[in-house]
Amino acid sequence: MKFCSVCGHEVHSTVPPGDNRARFCCARCGTIHYENPNMVLGTVCTWEDRVLLCRRAIEPRYGFWTLPAGFMENGETTAEGAQRETVEEAGARIELGPPFAMIDVPHVNQVHLFFRAALLDPSFEPGPESLEAKLFREDEIPWDSLAFRSVTQALRWFFADRREGTQSMHTGAVGPRRSPS
Amino acid sequence: MKFCSVCGHEVHSTVPPGDNRARFCCARCGTIHYENPNMVLGTVCTWEDRVLLCRRAIEPRYGFWTLPAGFMENGETTAEGAQRETVEEAGARIELGPPFAMIDVPHVNQVHLFFRAALLDPSFEPGPESLEAKLFREDEIPWDSLAFRSVTQALRWFFADRREGTQSMHTGAVGPRRSPS
Repeated sequence: MKFCSVCGHEVHSTVPPGDNRARFCCARCGTIHYENPNMVLGTVCTWEDRVLLCRRAIEPRYGFWTLPAGFMENGETTAEGAQRETVEEAGARIELGPPFAMIDVPHVNQVHLFFRAALLDPSFEPGPESLEAKLFREDEIPWDSLAFRSVTQALRWFFADRREGTQSMHTGAVGPRRSPS
Repeated sequence: MKFCSVCGHEVHSTVPPGDNRARFCCARCGTIHYENPNMVLGTVCTWEDRVLLCRRAIEPRYGFWTLPAGFMENGETTAEGAQRETVEEAGARIELGPPFAMIDVPHVNQVHLFFRAALLDPSFEPGPESLEAKLFREDEIPWDSLAFRSVTQALRWFFADRREGTQSMHTGAVGPRRSPS
């Protein structure tokens, strides 16, 4: 950020009075520009014993598999956003269930929230951000080709819950992916 | 938003290629300025059978009672943010527990997340954003003087759980407060 989005003047980074962090501040109009984390909303959609994954048609992680998910938009609830992203990315008709996994991703200033969902039918078609959408049994999941650590974590919790016959809320955090050695 | 924070040129609201929503876009440098909801993190802190409330020293809702809570900051986890806000607003030393209430507040583009917490001692002191901080038994809660509907909802869930001896995760949404008639 170099310019004030309200008046167009240059901003500078300084700690505002009464605050304890540096913010981008405008010396002309006085606006303080706060920057805060974003929520990413997604689903684990099931059909019989299989779950729906999408292969990414966009960067980052082009070609890797992920759960349908994306940034929460203004004016919607978390459930509405998770449903919307599942339609946009997988073209899936679903019945949304409760959230079951909340994962902090502080190195990119994000919080990822995944809901349970049931596919209403096994017909779906990938949107423009997906190369393909496909159902996987647990033993078919491409664990080494998943796009994000939060996706791996959510799927691990999902399958562990299913084996144990429970449906709890899971919380945790993930750091950056390690580079392949 | 009137000006591009990257290059200072005027922005205009338009639907970018491949998107389905209007965004503020810069015709000079091409930056798309996304605007997304913020997370508010807070705690229900207990000492024996009482919970900690703070009376707001700032607008909105100056003088009304609230749970210690505030905007999540970049670089922190949800748990770290809830702990930080409790220190900043109430000067309380706590042991943080799990999140138990997630409340969508779509009319202000926010998601409120409240954690359970235990006070390590009953000494605390309000920060600059609080007029006072005080412990309340359930029958002493100033229900008609609470600042926000999400605070009312979180406290209702908290006391219902305590009566039933359960500790589940609650999710819901609140709309705008009704004006007093």
